[in-house]
Amino acid sequence: MNFEKKAPIREGKAKILYETAHPDHIIQYFKDDATAFNALKKGTIKDKGVLNNSMSSWIFQYLQKQGIPTHFVQKLSDREMVVRKVEIIPVEMVVRNKAAGSITKRLGIAKGTPFEPPLVEFFYKSDALGDPLIGEGHILYFKWATEDEMQTMVKNTLLVDHYLRTVFREVGLELIDFKLEFGRCLKTGQLLLADEFTPDGSRLWDLKTGEPMDKDRFRQDLGGVEEAYQEVYRRLETYFKDRL
Amino acid sequence: MNFEKKAPIREGKAKILYETAHPDHIIQYFKDDATAFNALKKGTIKDKGVLNNSMSSWIFQYLQKQGIPTHFVQKLSDREMVVRKVEIIPVEMVVRNKAAGSITKRLGIAKGTPFEPPLVEFFYKSDALGDPLIGEGHILYFKWATEDEMQTMVKNTLLVDHYLRTVFREVGLELIDFKLEFGRCLKTGQLLLADEFTPDGSRLWDLKTGEPMDKDRFRQDLGGVEEAYQEVYRRLETYFKDRL
Repeated sequence: MNFEKKAPIREGKAKILYETAHPDHIIQYFKDDATAFNALKKGTIKDKGVLNNSMSSWIFQYLQKQGIPTHFVQKLSDREMVVRKVEIIPVEMVVRNKAAGSITKRLGIAKGTPFEPPLVEFFYKSDALGDPLIGEGHILYFKWATEDEMQTMVKNTLLVDHYLRTVFREVGLELIDFKLEFGRCLKTGQLLLADEFTPDGSRLWDLKTGEPMDKDRFRQDLGGVEEAYQEVYRRLETYFKDRL
Repeated sequence: MNFEKKAPIREGKAKILYETAHPDHIIQYFKDDATAFNALKKGTIKDKGVLNNSMSSWIFQYLQKQGIPTHFVQKLSDREMVVRKVEIIPVEMVVRNKAAGSITKRLGIAKGTPFEPPLVEFFYKSDALGDPLIGEGHILYFKWATEDEMQTMVKNTLLVDHYLRTVFREVGLELIDFKLEFGRCLKTGQLLLADEFTPDGSRLWDLKTGEPMDKDRFRQDLGGVEEAYQEVYRRLETYFKDRL
């Protein structure tokens, strides 16, 4: 197929989307830009785009093998992947296996408190509003997704948690929480896992030291940001070598 | 029954609860104290306790007549009502008929935008956390209510909206939004509408002028706070005269 890069569609905080010569496919280009606290804090993480493109590609392929439909088509270059064109559902799905980040203050739950079973939360995807927490009721009321779509998103989000918790544990990392986005395939209407799965949108703690190996190092100025992304990359590279 | 006032159980922002000689009943005493913005703003509204006690008594009696079970037993004095002892469910139920207050900023919806059908929202009742928004999922996950109780709360909250919108429209007021609390009757386990229904926890706009006739006058320093409460009281007094 012809994946020649055409005009940019949209530039986000960490990625740029481009049209291709093929109407049902677009290119996701991964930048090194990093933002936090709803873009109040900005910076770059050297080679993040290259690492995140690879990690996302492996994870999408792996999840697809487990039967979870994703928008991933193929890796195209160091910083580019080809994905199916989708209409993004404006709901960020968050799964929490342990308390960290916003929920600790919002509900007064001590950092590290385990959620068994995992807790699913919904946020309205809006930079202007700072991605506010919403409930299932808001999603249906404002028709951001149908009841069927919401059920599929919850089910697939919990499955992603199930599979990836195991993957990360095998490489010495604890999957604390993560964010997913879904979209409707423009060609088939099918609900696909979209966007990315990277240490930008997840929390990964080293199983031995408890150290964060994710964007919290950038958020909290902990240093060793590049090294953490590289380390996660190296561990996943080894794990996925013979598994995709 | 013996409703002699015994030791105080708990003092809240606008009410004090007392034990009575009867184990299944307590006394709600209505204060003049007014707070806003999670008690960052404090003041008093002269005679508010007297007016709110009467208005709540009428409304509870009226809702009970419509088949909605409440904790209300009888009015005892100017500032006191006898209510059934309940275990309060730590979820504030909010119904919105038009956008006002927190939702305008949170979801970027212009003040006055109608919600048809009414929008139901849930908040976790916690002064320490500032009553944060929650979803249905949080209520079940943290076992704040059972699925049955949640369904009953939603159903009864929408019924309260249905009945009271009509009542307020008849007296020239538009019911914009309101907050309800429910509790489990300690004696029977039945879910009862509890707490109060007053201009402290609702928004009432004059149908002719659009002026707020509720605690927003206090929150926003609009003046005429006492007069607004008295006016709502007078209109409801006339309406309920032959209806209870």
